[in-house]
Amino acid sequence: MKHLLSIEDVSREDVERICARAAAFSENQQREIKKVPALRGRTVLNLFYEASTRTRSSFELAAKRLSADVVNFSASGSSTEKGESLKDTVQTLSAHRPDAIVVRCPWAGAPALVAEWTDAAIINAGDGKHEHPTQALLDIYTLTRRLGSLDGVKIWVVGDVLHSRVARSNILGFQKMGAQVTVAGPPTLLPRDIEAMGVEVRYSLDDLHEADVVYALRMQNERMQQAYLPSMREYASLFQIDERRLGARSLLMHPGPVNRGVELSDGVVDCPQSLILEQVAAGVVVRMAVLFELLAASRAFDPVPEHQSA
Amino acid sequence: MKHLLSIEDVSREDVERICARAAAFSENQQREIKKVPALRGRTVLNLFYEASTRTRSSFELAAKRLSADVVNFSASGSSTEKGESLKDTVQTLSAHRPDAIVVRCPWAGAPALVAEWTDAAIINAGDGKHEHPTQALLDIYTLTRRLGSLDGVKIWVVGDVLHSRVARSNILGFQKMGAQVTVAGPPTLLPRDIEAMGVEVRYSLDDLHEADVVYALRMQNERMQQAYLPSMREYASLFQIDERRLGARSLLMHPGPVNRGVELSDGVVDCPQSLILEQVAAGVVVRMAVLFELLAASRAFDPVPEHQSA
Amino acid sequence: MKHLLSIEDVSREDVERICARAAAFSENQQREIKKVPALRGRTVLNLFYEASTRTRSSFELAAKRLSADVVNFSASGSSTEKGESLKDTVQTLSAHRPDAIVVRCPWAGAPALVAEWTDAAIINAGDGKHEHPTQALLDIYTLTRRLGSLDGVKIWVVGDVLHSRVARSNILGFQKMGAQVTVAGPPTLLPRDIEAMGVEVRYSLDDLHEADVVYALRMQNERMQQAYLPSMREYASLFQIDERRLGARSLLMHPGPVNRGVELSDGVVDCPQSLILEQVAAGVVVRMAVLFELLAASRAFDPVPEHQSA
Repeated sequence: MKHLLSIEDVSREDVERICARAAAFSENQQREIKKVPALRGRTVLNLFYEASTRTRSSFELAAKRLSADVVNFSASGSSTEKGESLKDTVQTLSAHRPDAIVVRCPWAGAPALVAEWTDAAIINAGDGKHEHPTQALLDIYTLTRRLGSLDGVKIWVVGDVLHSRVARSNILGFQKMGAQVTVAGPPTLLPRDIEAMGVEVRYSLDDLHEADVVYALRMQNERMQQAYLPSMREYASLFQIDERRLGARSLLMHPGPVNRGVELSDGVVDCPQSLILEQVAAGVVVRMAVLFELLAASRAFDPVPEHQSA
Repeated sequence: MKHLLSIEDVSREDVERICARAAAFSENQQREIKKVPALRGRTVLNLFYEASTRTRSSFELAAKRLSADVVNFSASGSSTEKGESLKDTVQTLSAHRPDAIVVRCPWAGAPALVAEWTDAAIINAGDGKHEHPTQALLDIYTLTRRLGSLDGVKIWVVGDVLHSRVARSNILGFQKMGAQVTVAGPPTLLPRDIEAMGVEVRYSLDDLHEADVVYALRMQNERMQQAYLPSMREYASLFQIDERRLGARSLLMHPGPVNRGVELSDGVVDCPQSLILEQVAAGVVVRMAVLFELLAASRAFDPVPEHQSA
Repeated sequence: MKHLLSIEDVSREDVERICARAAAFSENQQREIKKVPALRGRTVLNLFYEASTRTRSSFELAAKRLSADVVNFSASGSSTEKGESLKDTVQTLSAHRPDAIVVRCPWAGAPALVAEWTDAAIINAGDGKHEHPTQALLDIYTLTRRLGSLDGVKIWVVGDVLHSRVARSNILGFQKMGAQVTVAGPPTLLPRDIEAMGVEVRYSLDDLHEADVVYALRMQNERMQQAYLPSMREYASLFQIDERRLGARSLLMHPGPVNRGVELSDGVVDCPQSLILEQVAAGVVVRMAVLFELLAASRAFDPVPEHQSA
């Protein structure tokens, strides 16, 4: 693996290796000293054209816990305010010889272009409505830790599939690991050709009890203004996951941040079957594993914490 | 000490121990290598919902000089733009297992809530009009270095006490250390029940010569628009600290940033009795001592600078 | 050298020493571990009042590759929003005892004032229309690597000389190293007394083939609104550097970011004679050399990469 642009680039074996490494790093995260020296002297650039608490912080911490140096760029406060093009920005940053560039941007496909303009390893941290492959990896990791394997597991992806890069990456990723994926939501929020991805399609939650895992997507307020939805109240009445609909058996996942009272009821967020905080915690170790895979995997691996004193 | 939410949580002995450690760190700050390895491998999150040059930079440097990793969050550029709630933000960040979270926010009491949502040590870096305990600690440290002890010292806190978290924390802190506190300002800017805090109240500076220390508060321009003040000119004519009012004997303090020509005359800022820059310098070492207290105090303490070469 | 405020402060010998060090650092940049421990334990503050991808990232990486700690300030998100003056900001930051402060601001001459308010070494990273000395140094370094020496080299600086701090620093820097400088542009964009700098002046590109090096300046869109130019289209028709005008022999430079289709044609940016990406790459190593010169030059110099494992 040279880049992580799409979950389609990654084989099942790749995913299993990344999850195994994430599990090894996870043990370090229980200790007082959570750092390992694996990427000491390396530089990771975070190039973010969109706001993100979870993803940027998760990558920044992942890189720092591998002892890499991190430089953050956000669209505001950079030359993008002067109209610099993405290509020029990337070539400029690339001339500084970073080892990896983590790209979050509103343009589908941009990370693949970026990979052509630089020698650095590129990680797609979300590109428009296209993909968000580290989200899929951390969700697979979280589920695998809980269930052992995804083979034959029934996962319902619920909500705004049409506009969701998470949905796209996760459907592909879950299927790669052997799960059976169903998508459910109002017809206006499901892509017309979605069956071609090999999923079942439902327009109600009547059979949600069949699901081993309910993966709720974030609902963007903007959708209502764009007339995809008559009202948030109606959406919630038909598709909000609450304790009653979830039932006692299904696990609950959500990529965050949650709109409480919209796609999830307030109570269900912290219910015993909710894996939401485990997903967030998985973010750091899975991204550590991805950075390690791209930048250091050919070297001997020794995830021992850095010695504590000077 | 698990958290630093309020100056009320800290005993006189705690304050004395923190000041002693800050003094030890202060000696390192005179050297070329100012870093100590005390918090190597630890992570400090700065979660700032309000702009602040002094406080954020001071915490960031304090953490870095203890060899901790620092991740900064500000409200702009994070998921708060997407309407994520404080609780969800904190739970997300907390899932990344930081050792400490430094919180600055406009909501009084929020740091105490944050402390319930995470295992990390929480430091209140200013919450609305409520408290700013590290400011009180660094002011106590600065004064103690100069005067030896605060027992019986007469401190006048002058200006907009009503809206000031610094005033609240400092009055409580100064009293804890044995000082006699007087507050002075226009009646509209003093809380009605302020005598209950055990302070004397004055509505003019006629007796300011009694003060050993004059602690001037920052005047917010917004107050005038909100009709707390007839005009800044009138405020300055009655309550601005200038050389004549300060006299030759009293020490001068201010939490910064100063509005020159409003609460302080331009000349008095840099006068020989001004401790203003000493307060700023104290910010880093006192915050190092607080981080050390919360994260490392149970371990052996050895503030020796990190060895210089590789 | 205590500060780098202007290219005029630097002797030809200083420039040669800085370039030699940059060349030494450049060899490390080819290795997997690009860090050297030269400034371990030191603190570099980036104080930026203007947006900049190239310059800030370049200084940040330079400092981190020397193992220094870096703290970034930008005007938004700091106390400047509360109206804090430059002097107070600098005195505050200075009380934190940084070793160097890198200043980018819209006020010509401000870095020299900053140097009077602090003990830190000050590096001017661009002040209004005045100077940008590290840009001149990295351009000299880039050209010297290609040509061996600048003695007698003919350099044309083309475009908006009037508003360009890069033009001012580079003309002085190129001349210091023995080059013959010509400026060319529309009369409204050349300073009236520019001959006093010892340059030739041309109002067309008719003789551009005489140039060994063409240094194109960035054209600011704002200039047209301010009536310096009738239109961008007319400017481009007369002064845009394209393959035909550049010819086969002249080298091409530009400080970036490029306005493709304005001062440079799209094709010429990546042509074989273009040094534009080499300039960007030079940014990190030249700024490493400047930081080293100001903070560590008196100590033994050993640019060996940091040992890799813990």
